[in-house]
Amino acid sequence: SKNKYSKERLSLYLSLYRVSHITRVLAFSLARNKGARTTDLVCIQNQSSLDGTILLTFDLFSTFFHRNYFGEKIAMYFVFLGFYTEMLSFAAIVGLACFIYGLLSMDGNSNSTEICDPTIGGQIIMCPLCDQVCDYWRLNTTCLASKISHLFDNESTVFFAIFMGIWVTLFLEFWKQRQARMEYEWDLVDFEEEQQQLQLRPEFEAMCKHRKMNAVTKEMEPYMPLWSRLPWYFLSGATVTLWMALVIACMVAVIVYRLSVFATFASFMESEASFKHVKSFLTPQITTSLTGSCLNFIVILILNFFYEKISAWITKMEIPRTYQEYESSLTLKMFLFQFVNFYSSCFYVAFFKGKFVGYPGKYTYLFNVWRSEECDPGGCLIELTTQLTIIMTGKQIFGNVKEAIYPMVLNWWRRRKARTNSEKLYSRWEQDHDLETFGSLGLFYEYLETVIQFGFVTLFVASFPLAPLLALLNNIIEIRVDAWKLTTQYRRPVAAKAHSIGVWQDILYGMAVLSVATNAFIVAFTSDIIPRLVYYYAYSTDATEPMKGYVNDSLSTFLIADFPNHTAPSGKRDFVTCRYRDYRYPPDHDQKYFHNMQYWHVLAAKMTFIIVMEHVAFLVKFLLAWMIPDVPKDVLDRIKREKLMTIKILHDFELNKLKENLRINSSELKSAHWPEIKVNTSHSLYERCILG
Amino acid sequence: SKNKYSKERLSLYLSLYRVSHITRVLAFSLARNKGARTTDLVCIQNQSSLDGTILLTFDLFSTFFHRNYFGEKIAMYFVFLGFYTEMLSFAAIVGLACFIYGLLSMDGNSNSTEICDPTIGGQIIMCPLCDQVCDYWRLNTTCLASKISHLFDNESTVFFAIFMGIWVTLFLEFWKQRQARMEYEWDLVDFEEEQQQLQLRPEFEAMCKHRKMNAVTKEMEPYMPLWSRLPWYFLSGATVTLWMALVIACMVAVIVYRLSVFATFASFMESEASFKHVKSFLTPQITTSLTGSCLNFIVILILNFFYEKISAWITKMEIPRTYQEYESSLTLKMFLFQFVNFYSSCFYVAFFKGKFVGYPGKYTYLFNVWRSEECDPGGCLIELTTQLTIIMTGKQIFGNVKEAIYPMVLNWWRRRKARTNSEKLYSRWEQDHDLETFGSLGLFYEYLETVIQFGFVTLFVASFPLAPLLALLNNIIEIRVDAWKLTTQYRRPVAAKAHSIGVWQDILYGMAVLSVATNAFIVAFTSDIIPRLVYYYAYSTDATEPMKGYVNDSLSTFLIADFPNHTAPSGKRDFVTCRYRDYRYPPDHDQKYFHNMQYWHVLAAKMTFIIVMEHVAFLVKFLLAWMIPDVPKDVLDRIKREKLMTIKILHDFELNKLKENLRINSSELKSAHWPEIKVNTSHSLYERCILG
Repeated sequence: SKNKYSKERLSLYLSLYRVSHITRVLAFSLARNKGARTTDLVCIQNQSSLDGTILLTFDLFSTFFHRNYFGEKIAMYFVFLGFYTEMLSFAAIVGLACFIYGLLSMDGNSNSTEICDPTIGGQIIMCPLCDQVCDYWRLNTTCLASKISHLFDNESTVFFAIFMGIWVTLFLEFWKQRQARMEYEWDLVDFEEEQQQLQLRPEFEAMCKHRKMNAVTKEMEPYMPLWSRLPWYFLSGATVTLWMALVIACMVAVIVYRLSVFATFASFMESEASFKHVKSFLTPQITTSLTGSCLNFIVILILNFFYEKISAWITKMEIPRTYQEYESSLTLKMFLFQFVNFYSSCFYVAFFKGKFVGYPGKYTYLFNVWRSEECDPGGCLIELTTQLTIIMTGKQIFGNVKEAIYPMVLNWWRRRKARTNSEKLYSRWEQDHDLETFGSLGLFYEYLETVIQFGFVTLFVASFPLAPLLALLNNIIEIRVDAWKLTTQYRRPVAAKAHSIGVWQDILYGMAVLSVATNAFIVAFTSDIIPRLVYYYAYSTDATEPMKGYVNDSLSTFLIADFPNHTAPSGKRDFVTCRYRDYRYPPDHDQKYFHNMQYWHVLAAKMTFIIVMEHVAFLVKFLLAWMIPDVPKDVLDRIKREKLMTIKILHDFELNKLKENLRINSSELKSAHWPEIKVNTSHSLYERCILG
Repeated sequence: SKNKYSKERLSLYLSLYRVSHITRVLAFSLARNKGARTTDLVCIQNQSSLDGTILLTFDLFSTFFHRNYFGEKIAMYFVFLGFYTEMLSFAAIVGLACFIYGLLSMDGNSNSTEICDPTIGGQIIMCPLCDQVCDYWRLNTTCLASKISHLFDNESTVFFAIFMGIWVTLFLEFWKQRQARMEYEWDLVDFEEEQQQLQLRPEFEAMCKHRKMNAVTKEMEPYMPLWSRLPWYFLSGATVTLWMALVIACMVAVIVYRLSVFATFASFMESEASFKHVKSFLTPQITTSLTGSCLNFIVILILNFFYEKISAWITKMEIPRTYQEYESSLTLKMFLFQFVNFYSSCFYVAFFKGKFVGYPGKYTYLFNVWRSEECDPGGCLIELTTQLTIIMTGKQIFGNVKEAIYPMVLNWWRRRKARTNSEKLYSRWEQDHDLETFGSLGLFYEYLETVIQFGFVTLFVASFPLAPLLALLNNIIEIRVDAWKLTTQYRRPVAAKAHSIGVWQDILYGMAVLSVATNAFIVAFTSDIIPRLVYYYAYSTDATEPMKGYVNDSLSTFLIADFPNHTAPSGKRDFVTCRYRDYRYPPDHDQKYFHNMQYWHVLAAKMTFIIVMEHVAFLVKFLLAWMIPDVPKDVLDRIKREKLMTIKILHDFELNKLKENLRINSSELKSAHWPEIKVNTSHSLYERCILG
C-alpha cells in the first residue's frame, strides 16, 4: 500500500505538469546535459537546417533554445536584449522622424536665416572668444553651425523628450510583463533564491576564524565581525571615490586642453590662408570640440580598463560572504564608476559649459588662468550632440570589436599552443575545453554594457534624437556577436536559473526617473527653445513675423573701451561695441552689465517649464504604471488555474483515500451485521470535513 | 496505518504552531464564538479587573483582544489608528516647537515692526480693497494681522515642510514594518484573498441572464456583458463629475459671498463708531474670511451628507460582481468626492486666491461683477491657516459627536419601542440584537475619515504647524469613541480576516507624494519667504539691516488719477498715489504698471525653490524607502526559520516512513535469508533521493 501511495503522488505531480512542457522536455533531451558542446550545437543546427543565425532571431524557438542550452540566466539576458531591441525600433522611428523634421524645416527657420543674412548677421560684430589672440568676428561666420544646430534644437526636441519619457515607462512596464511570462513558462513562479548564489564562498569560509549562530538554521556558521571587515570597506569606498575623483580630474584636464588649444586653433586658422575655404564648416569651436570629445573618449576607455581590474581585486579583498554579496558589491562599484566615467562629460557639456562664463570684461577664469568655456555660437545643444555621438558610437564600436576579437585572439593562441601536440590527439572535447571560460561575471559585463547604453538613449535623448537608432543598429549586431561568441568562442557556461534580470531592473528604473529630470533640464537650459518662446510671446515687436529680430535681441552689447588691459585684441577698430550671448544691460544703462529683466523672465520661464514637464511626465508615468498590470492577465489566469487544479487533485486524492478507509471499516462493520446506512452518513461527514 | 498517518500529520502541524499562540488560544476560547456579546465582554472586563478602558490602550493585549474578539480586519484598523497616533505625537511636538519659535520671534521680526511703525506703515496709504465703497487705508491698521501672520509664516515653515516630508516617508515605511509584523503574528503570511470578498454578490447572480466560462475554474458562471453595464458606468461617472462640479460651484458661491459681503462689512465698519475699538483685530478681511470659512464648512457637511446616500445607491445600481468590486467602486467614488469636497477650498486659498487680482485701475472681475479677491494684507498664508483650522477642527468635532450620538439615539429609540413588551421578556440577547448593525461599510467610513485627516496633516502642513497636534488630540478621543461605540452601541460585527489596510495604503502613498508638491508650492507661492529672501540677497540697500525697507519695496505705486470712472472712492484727497502689493513699474515709467524686473526675479526664485525642494525631498524619500526594509529583520528570520522547520519535519516524516517500509522489506528479505548489508545500501539510496 505504501508503494501505491508514492505512485499516486507521482501521477499527481505529472498531471500537474503542463502539456506544453512536453515539447520542451523533448528538446531538452536533445540539447542539454550532453558531453561535447560543439557537437550538439551542430546537431541542433542541422536539425533545423539553419546556420548560426538560428540564435539570432527573437522568436520563441530561439528563447527556448537559449534556455535549454545555456540555462535560464543566460536565456533571460537574450530575452531582455531582444525585447529592448524590439522596443528601441519604435523609439528609433520616432527619433528619425524628428530628425527628418529638423532637416526639412532647416531652411525655413528664422534663427539661422537671420544669422546667415549678411545685412543682419553680417553686421553684428561679436566679442572675441578668447583673450588677446582671438579677434572680433561677424555672426554670419557661424551660419552653417546654426543650420546644423537647428537639426537638433527645434520644436520636435520637446516632443521627443516627452515621447521618450513615455517610451521608457512603457518599456519598463512591458518588460515586467514579458519577464512574468518567461517566469511562468520557465516554471520559476515559486523559485525564490538561487541556492548557488546563497552558498558561502570558500574564500570566506577559509578566512573566517569566528563563528556565530545563524538565526534561521540555528547552526554555528563562519562569521566575520564588522570590525575586521571595516578597514576593507573603507579601503574600497576610498578607492571608488578616488577613481571617481580621477574621472572628474581627467574631465577638467580635457577642459583645460580645450581652452588652451582653442586660442591656438583660432589664431592659427586666422592667419593661415589655406584654411580660408574650410573655415565655414571647420570653425575653431568645432575643431576644439571634436578633438576634445575624442580625447575624452580615449581617457574614458583607459580609465575603464584599469578600473575593471582594480574593482574586481578590491571586491575580493572585502571577502564577501556569498556569491550574491560578491556580485552586488561589484555591481555597485562598477555601476557607480561607469556612470560617472561615461556620463560626466555629457553632464558637464549639458549643464555647466557656458553657464558660468561671466561677461566680456569680467570673464570667470578657471584656476585664474583659463577663461571659462563658452558654448558654440550655434548653441550648447549642438555641443552635447557632438559629445554624445562620439562617446556613444565610439563605445559601441569598441565594445563590439573587443567582444569579438578578444576571445578569438585568446583562443587562437591556445589552439596554437595545443597544436604543438600531435594533430590527431587534439580531440574535439579538448578543443572545446581549451576555449575561453565565460565566467560568473561574463553576463554581468554584458548587462552593464546594455544598461550604460540605455542611459545614453534615455538621459540625453532630448539633444540627439538619433541615439535610439544608433543603439538599435548596435544591438542588432550585439545580439549576433554575443550569440556567436557564446556558442563558438567560449566554453559552454554552467547553466544557472534566474527568474528576472535582478538588480539591473532597479537600476533601469532609477535611470528612467533620472532621465525625466535630465531631459527637462536639457530642454530648459541647454536648448534655445525657452528663450525663443519668451521672445515670441513677450518681447517681439513685429506682429506679422514674431520671431523677427530674435538674434539681435538675444545678444547684449559691450563697450570695447571697458575691456581690461591685455584682454582685448590689439589694433584700432572702426566700431566701439561688440556683442555677446547673454541678457545684460547695455553700457549706457546705470546698472550696466547687470542681468536685465529679460534674463529673469527667461529664467522664470525655464524653471516653470521644468516644473510643468516633470510633473506631467511623472503623472503620465504613474498612470501608465498603474494601468498596465505587472503580470499579463492570461498568465495570471493560468497560474491561478494551476493552483486550483493542485488543490482539487490533492483534495480528490485525500477523499479517495478516506473513502477506501471507510470501505474497509464498512466491510468490517458489514461483517458485524451493522446496517449499511450508517456508513454512508459517516462518509458524507468526512467529505464535509475536508470540503469545509 | 492510515489513521496513524493522519495523527502524525496532526502532530506535525501542531509542532509547527508557535508556542506564543497558545496564550492566544486560551483567550480565544474565552472571548470568541460565544453567543451573547455583552456578556462575554463583561466577562473579559471582570477578568482583567478593568473597565472599558481596556480597549483603549495601545499595548499588545489590546491588539490581541481586538483580534480575537472582532477579527483581524477590525483589529488592523485599531492597530493602524494606534500607530498613526503614536507617529503623530512626534510631528505634533516638532510642530508645536515651530509654533513656539514663531511666538518667541514675533516681536523681533522686521516685517511687522515696519508695518506697525507709525512713521513707516502709518505713512503708507494703500489703495482701496473694493470699488467705490471702500476707502484708502493706512498700512499700520493691519499691524496685528501681520504679527499673527508671522506666527505661521517664518523661517521655521520651510524647516517644518521638509520635516513633514521626511516624517510622512518614515510613517509609511514603519507602518509597512508594523503591518508585516502583525501579518506574521496573526498567521496571515500565506493568506491571499478573502474568500468572502471574492464570492459573487447575490444581487449580481439574480440580475444576470448571461453565462460565461470562468478562465480559472473552467465552470460556467453568471456574467454581465459590458454593454449592459456601460450605461450604469456612464451614469455613475456622470454623477460623480456632477457632484464634484457642484462642490466647485458651491466654492465659487462662497467666494461670491465673500466678495459681496466684504464691501458691506468694510463700509459698515467704517461708518459705525461702535466698531472703533474692535477695529484693530476685527478688520473687514478677517470678518469676511472667518464667516466665509464657516459657511464653506457648513456647505461641505451638507454636500457630504447627500453624496453619501447617493454614492451608495449608485454603486448598487452598477451591480458589482463581488463584494470586493463593490467596495473598490465605492472607495473610488467616495474618496474622489471627499478629496475635492474637503480640500478644494484649501487649494483655492493656497494657490489661486490673490494670484490673479490684476492691479488698481485694471482689476480682474469675476463674472464681470465682483472684483477678484485679494489676500489678507498679512499675507495669503494666514488665510490658508484660518481656512484649514476651521474645516479641520469642525470636521473632527462634528465627526466624533456624530459617531457617538447617532448610534446612541438609534439604540435608545429601538429600546424604547422594545420596552413596550413586558420588561422581563426583553432578554439580554434580544437587547444585544436590537443594537445598531456595524455593517460591511462601517470600517470603510472609519478609514476614510482617518485618511482625510491624514491629508489635512500632510498636504497643507506648511501653513499650519499645529495641524498634527490637532489631529493627535482628535485621534486620542477617536480611538476611545470607536472602541466604546463598537463594544456597546453596535451589534458585535462578524469577524473577518485582513492582512493589510488594503487600498488605503496606496491612497496614503499618493497623498505623501502629493504633499511634497503642495508644501513646496505653499512655501513658494503662499508664504512670503521667497520675496523676503530675494530682497535680502539682491535688492537690499542697507548693509547692516538687510531687511530694512522690505515693506516699502514690496509695494508698488499707483497714480490715483489713473483709476477708471466710478471705481475710486469719492472725495478729494491730499495725496496723489496709493500703494498695492505687487511688483510693477511706477506710473512715471514708460512701461507703467507692467511687471518689473523684481517680479520676474522673485518668480524665478520661487520656481527654483520648488525644483530644489521637490528634488531634495523625493531623493530623501527614495533613500529612506530604500534603506528601511519592508519586513523587520527578526520577523523575516522567524518566517524563514519556520519554513526551514516545515521542510525538516516533512523530510523527517517521509524518512521515517521509508525506513519503516524498508524494515518491513528487510524483515521479508531476512526471512528469505538475504544479507543485511543490502538493505542498508538501499536505505541510504532512498535517503539520498529525498535529500537531493
